[in-house]
Amino acid sequence: MTIFSAILDGKIPCHRVYEDDHVLAFLDVSPLSRGHTLVIPKERVATMGELSDDAAAAIGRVLPRLCRALVRATGCTDYNLLQNNGEAAHQAVMHVHIHIIPKYLDADGLGLQWNVGTLDEPEALAGTIAKAIE
Amino acid sequence: MTIFSAILDGKIPCHRVYEDDHVLAFLDVSPLSRGHTLVIPKERVATMGELSDDAAAAIGRVLPRLCRALVRATGCTDYNLLQNNGEAAHQAVMHVHIHIIPKYLDADGLGLQWNVGTLDEPEALAGTIAKAIE
Repeated sequence: MTIFSAILDGKIPCHRVYEDDHVLAFLDVSPLSRGHTLVIPKERVATMGELSDDAAAAIGRVLPRLCRALVRATGCTDYNLLQNNGEAAHQAVMHVHIHIIPKYLDADGLGLQWNVGTLDEPEALAGTIAKAIE
Repeated sequence: MTIFSAILDGKIPCHRVYEDDHVLAFLDVSPLSRGHTLVIPKERVATMGELSDDAAAAIGRVLPRLCRALVRATGCTDYNLLQNNGEAAHQAVMHVHIHIIPKYLDADGLGLQWNVGTLDEPEALAGTIAKAIE
């Protein structure tokens, strides 16, 4: 039971911007910038890897429309989509959620720390991942 | 013409982990952590807002499988999905791409700067965004 389950059950209100049979989108109450929106599946699982193919496709399908609406509504030029899985990856609510975070010229929004490493034994690694796909 | 177009055209090689009619996934050559993978649509547009609904749904559908495969193949526990739109939002290649970035206990991976603001006039903002959705 997460706060997003309570929102889906109507026990806690949200500032809704979109809803369909599979997806709910609403404003983040602790925004990184104006228009910061959360997109969640109605399927109640913690991580992307646990989500059904159909629920993930339904979220994917609505993202372009939501992004265009955010640009139109807020006037932001750029934006980030972020989806965290697991506590070490900064996930705070254990229900899949995609952040759409508008980026403004005054630099409000998502900041990234991008510490690049090296790609070692890429062929072996790519093969291992490819083989692990069902 | 981006480097990802050249990869899709077979003019530049990649370390492929997955491909279907709509989607290609391959290892990032400048990884933030072991297994850092890029997922791109074969549709050649720069931002999520420009992507067709069908292409976005096809990417969404394959994400759970790719995430599970990465966890199995790398042993990472947690991971981040990140998709940047526009230069101000840290986009470097102007072809839609989703980063899947494994997070390890030694803290390799994506670092975030999370500077929370306040949610002002949420009802008006949510209404404006909702109305902007086609």
